[in-house]
Amino acid sequence: MHIQEFQKMMCKLYFHRDTARGVTGTYDWLVDEVRELGEALESNDKVAQEKEFADVVAWLASLANITNINLEKAALGKYDNKCPKCRRSPCECAF
Amino acid sequence: MHIQEFQKMMCKLYFHRDTARGVTGTYDWLVDEVRELGEALESNDKVAQEKEFADVVAWLASLANITNINLEKAALGKYDNKCPKCRRSPCECAF
Repeated sequence: MHIQEFQKMMCKLYFHRDTARGVTGTYDWLVDEVRELGEALESNDKVAQEKEFADVVAWLASLANITNINLEKAALGKYDNKCPKCRRSPCECAF
Repeated sequence: MHIQEFQKMMCKLYFHRDTARGVTGTYDWLVDEVRELGEALESNDKVAQEKEFADVVAWLASLANITNINLEKAALGKYDNKCPKCRRSPCECAF
């Protein structure tokens, strides 16, 4: 599924709730999901890790929806088959 | 671009660096990018916001690459055109 299509699906499912919650509340929820992803990564539970990755990308899409950002356009605007810093693929930036 | 295709592009660009940095270091960098996204959202700078959304999704893909998670499969496994809790579209969960 295209990133944009996933964002649209999240819009259909959750825009009414995301709008009511607002940008700050939705951002805070994203931070919480990132924390939960960190906890899952400390375990060996792949199913839990998949669910937490899903939640982070879902909340990121929700946040993009209520801030009028096209997540796919933003991602490809910066990462266009080259490292945005060294302009190489693979990246050759100094460590 | 498909979520999976974006993840593969990030793999090609950064897998060598992400592997060298490791899961904890890459997770910490993701957390930092989420913090920067929060700062950008407090401004009215749409270009900065787009760049920070790009960085968060890029680092999330990097983290998925080094933990052997298929981000698209994970996302669609949980969010399949229905809210995973109430099974409705749009979501009708109680607030």
